Amino acid sequence: MAQKLPLAALNALPAGDFAAALANIFEHSPWIAEAAAQARPFATLADLRTALIGVIDNASPERRLALINAHPDLANRTQRAVGLTAESTAEQDGAGLDRLSDVEFKLFERSNAAYKQKFGFPFVLCVRRHTRDSIFDAFARRLQNPPQQEAGEAIREIGRIATLRLAELVEGDSSLAVSGRLSTHVLDTHGGQPAAGVQLELIELSRHGADRLIGRAVTNTDGRTDRALIEGRPVPIGAYELRFHIGAYFARHGVELSDPAFLDVVPVRFGVSEPERHLHVPLLVTPWSYTTYRGS
Amino acid sequence: MAQKLPLAALNALPAGDFAAALANIFEHSPWIAEAAAQARPFATLADLRTALIGVIDNASPERRLALINAHPDLANRTQRAVGLTAESTAEQDGAGLDRLSDVEFKLFERSNAAYKQKFGFPFVLCVRRHTRDSIFDAFARRLQNPPQQEAGEAIREIGRIATLRLAELVEGDSSLAVSGRLSTHVLDTHGGQPAAGVQLELIELSRHGADRLIGRAVTNTDGRTDRALIEGRPVPIGAYELRFHIGAYFARHGVELSDPAFLDVVPVRFGVSEPERHLHVPLLVTPWSYTTYRGS
Amino acid sequence: MAQKLPLAALNALPAGDFAAALANIFEHSPWIAEAAAQARPFATLADLRTALIGVIDNASPERRLALINAHPDLANRTQRAVGLTAESTAEQDGAGLDRLSDVEFKLFERSNAAYKQKFGFPFVLCVRRHTRDSIFDAFARRLQNPPQQEAGEAIREIGRIATLRLAELVEGDSSLAVSGRLSTHVLDTHGGQPAAGVQLELIELSRHGADRLIGRAVTNTDGRTDRALIEGRPVPIGAYELRFHIGAYFARHGVELSDPAFLDVVPVRFGVSEPERHLHVPLLVTPWSYTTYRGS
Amino acid sequence: MAQKLPLAALNALPAGDFAAALANIFEHSPWIAEAAAQARPFATLADLRTALIGVIDNASPERRLALINAHPDLANRTQRAVGLTAESTAEQDGAGLDRLSDVEFKLFERSNAAYKQKFGFPFVLCVRRHTRDSIFDAFARRLQNPPQQEAGEAIREIGRIATLRLAELVEGDSSLAVSGRLSTHVLDTHGGQPAAGVQLELIELSRHGADRLIGRAVTNTDGRTDRALIEGRPVPIGAYELRFHIGAYFARHGVELSDPAFLDVVPVRFGVSEPERHLHVPLLVTPWSYTTYRGS
Repeated sequence: MAQKLPLAALNALPAGDFAAALANIFEHSPWIAEAAAQARPFATLADLRTALIGVIDNASPERRLALINAHPDLANRTQRAVGLTAESTAEQDGAGLDRLSDVEFKLFERSNAAYKQKFGFPFVLCVRRHTRDSIFDAFARRLQNPPQQEAGEAIREIGRIATLRLAELVEGDSSLAVSGRLSTHVLDTHGGQPAAGVQLELIELSRHGADRLIGRAVTNTDGRTDRALIEGRPVPIGAYELRFHIGAYFARHGVELSDPAFLDVVPVRFGVSEPERHLHVPLLVTPWSYTTYRGS
Repeated sequence: MAQKLPLAALNALPAGDFAAALANIFEHSPWIAEAAAQARPFATLADLRTALIGVIDNASPERRLALINAHPDLANRTQRAVGLTAESTAEQDGAGLDRLSDVEFKLFERSNAAYKQKFGFPFVLCVRRHTRDSIFDAFARRLQNPPQQEAGEAIREIGRIATLRLAELVEGDSSLAVSGRLSTHVLDTHGGQPAAGVQLELIELSRHGADRLIGRAVTNTDGRTDRALIEGRPVPIGAYELRFHIGAYFARHGVELSDPAFLDVVPVRFGVSEPERHLHVPLLVTPWSYTTYRGS
Repeated sequence: MAQKLPLAALNALPAGDFAAALANIFEHSPWIAEAAAQARPFATLADLRTALIGVIDNASPERRLALINAHPDLANRTQRAVGLTAESTAEQDGAGLDRLSDVEFKLFERSNAAYKQKFGFPFVLCVRRHTRDSIFDAFARRLQNPPQQEAGEAIREIGRIATLRLAELVEGDSSLAVSGRLSTHVLDTHGGQPAAGVQLELIELSRHGADRLIGRAVTNTDGRTDRALIEGRPVPIGAYELRFHIGAYFARHGVELSDPAFLDVVPVRFGVSEPERHLHVPLLVTPWSYTTYRGS
Repeated sequence: MAQKLPLAALNALPAGDFAAALANIFEHSPWIAEAAAQARPFATLADLRTALIGVIDNASPERRLALINAHPDLANRTQRAVGLTAESTAEQDGAGLDRLSDVEFKLFERSNAAYKQKFGFPFVLCVRRHTRDSIFDAFARRLQNPPQQEAGEAIREIGRIATLRLAELVEGDSSLAVSGRLSTHVLDTHGGQPAAGVQLELIELSRHGADRLIGRAVTNTDGRTDRALIEGRPVPIGAYELRFHIGAYFARHGVELSDPAFLDVVPVRFGVSEPERHLHVPLLVTPWSYTTYRGS
């Protein structure tokens, strides 16, 4: 990852350099940073973000529409071939949009087309807060919006995209609150101790394409993973499955099991709805029972 | 299902008719029923079974080997084309051996061949007590046996096959104990009541082929299913998944959920090891937590 | 317990004998059964009950008031010395009103006095549906009633008393539905089996007096008690504690425990609000964890 | 609490002052600190403790016996009237030995007498690691010891007492590890959130005397208590009950409850066996169910 720019340094730049440094925060729309440069210095990243969003809020409807139109379609192979901004490409790849099934690809084509036909501008979504499934859900929901309201949603999403890009570009305080966290904890209630050495996988589920393995870990002596399963970024909205290799754990501890074991791989399937929150999904487990819950 | 023959009527038949009536209990081996006819009358089905098994136990090694050799290979398409006994066909189809994936089919071919090469007789297994996965596990385990011991295992399996066929053919007491039971119960611990109207599916899992939907049900006002998920027959050894449609249940009850719901379809994956026992797999569930366990 | 009178025999009695047989259903008020005798024969006990209650509902306000006034005070030692009906004595003793603490006794005196002063008639309650605590709660609640409404409540309680007496006196169908049930089940989720041989006690809790041991049992091989903890009668409204001797159970099974054990006697405290329902209070337990819930 | 002495300052004192500073670490036995003074400087508190214990280990049997005999009886009212060291008084009071029931007091008298008769020296125990119940358990267990072994146990307890006094007297590193921790966490699995504002009490249970309220707290927005229930000292070995006021919590949240509530005050009774460890006792709770376990 590139070196971040300190907020103080950004504040101190000549106006043109300031705008250039922030050029990529908004797709092809340098006018926003140029206008915000007048309001320097910014005490916090949140203040800077507020100033940038304020420029958009005060812009004419035409300029706002042009900003929306500056965005690429999601998962559009032709645009991708011609060239997206590096930021757009990374964001779309992160959400798995470069590895779609045929069904998913066709759904994207159809959804983009239906959306454009209704609203006349491309569908804008902060994809780093989403999985493939939740993008389709967002299409379905927003296609019901009246056009005026939908333009507002698009602008809000542009604000979310900009916030995440800002947090990566500029070094500052934690005031942007762009990161969530997904964590787990395995308690062995047969032995009355944290379950250490349990292998686990995190899978992103998909209704129309392939499920996607997005993490593996082994629990430490405290029954937790050394690093959270997802952290330092939004936890994408969507459906997930954690798989805990419990049978192997108890077998290693010499616990007498049935053959096959009553519990071998324990799947816990759950939905994420708030990308910027901490979601804790623990497991209390014996060879014959388990409990899971949304913890904190 | 054909009308069953009462045990009393069977006891009263001429010896030849008795043997004819039981001809299909053992594959192509009428001599067993013929010999057992001498020991009539039988007070219970278990007594009859004991007499039949006793005939085999007292037979010469050659006759016992011939009995084993009278059995078909599992999942052998050539033999199937030529014609198995109706009983063998039904039993193999019940275990899904007529709908194998290519990988599974090749595994069967290879396993049958390896087994025959080592032992010189076909692999005999009471498939109604098994799933595809547990058949492969049985192959793997029994291929490790010394030949003498393996002939004993094959005879034991022939006894199990005969017991199940006997229980279907003859009407009598419950002394054969061939049936297990798989049941569930959904408790809504958010509302403090049985969860009625919860859709659920029972899936047989497979390591090498396709998972197989083997049952659907909806819970009744007591949170149970009107009939057990499996009953009146052995619960095949293997791995299963129950899927409880919990999100839809709570949504119908007007409970406020996140979007997507934290819990939507709850999968509970478990192994069955004792086909003739009652296995109870309940779910205690709120929109934010659940507990499952091996009940009784 | 005295022999019950079959409903058919009751239907066939001369009117005078019929009224005499039911004389004790209502305290000192033979006129009710006398009037109901005209409506014979009764197909079910519920029909008979309806007829009896109908007589009261159609009686003049003066007669209804006289019926209420025919009832003794609760826990009144003077009246007890002079003599209650045998039915009243048994019912009050069953609720523990013969073994009150001094504080409880004074509370009864004060409550009875306050009630009589406000309403001019004695407090009537079907005490077999209550514990000491819930009697005090009923006093507190009903003292808020307007007099007209309170007379109605008293009559309703007289109907409940009569229903229970009727169910004990006359042999008939189960149409009166006077009985509830309290049951438990102990599952050993450490061993994956019902917990057999667990000693347990059922305690009725009291805010103003001594807690009262009302049952002891040992779980059977299915982890249940051979008989329900309470059955064949209402489960009195109130607060209870079940105490499960879990430490001793796991020690007997050779499970390694800490010293002292993390779990020894597990108390489960719960309230009963519906005396005629089945309340199931199970325990899923390991040496290091447990779960309990309102089951069914 | 008095100002602590830094270890560096202690190291720098003249030998006599060093011994004087540590005089109260061991009851009436200045010779131990005097001898240990030779080994200065000490890098850590654990090193200092090791040196002090080493002096005892290397002392003659007579001196070791004199050290044991320098200790008071537990809960001896006569000695208390005459005067214990301030340290002994505070320690015994902390364990509740100044508020014994008559039964407990007699048990102490009898236990002390039996012990002295058998061993000829007073019973020494680090009471800050114990409750009344576990002191009686220790009496019972140690009375079974052969005299030689018991003298060793007494010396070990003197070491534990000294370690705790040292940790309070000298400011240093955390190398003595004298503190445990008892914590809780309440999760509302009905609402899917931490349960904030739950009142709870911690009770020390007693077999022979009165239970003793030793803490009250209210859960914060994270469902935890702002400070651990016990911390910064050993968690005394014994039996405890946590009482969670769950009914009031759900009533405040507008959840529909039965009357009386199925769950009102939830008691969780547990044993503590390792005073220097962290014991976490959480509660996952709905109005109709709960789960608790030994967490970490």
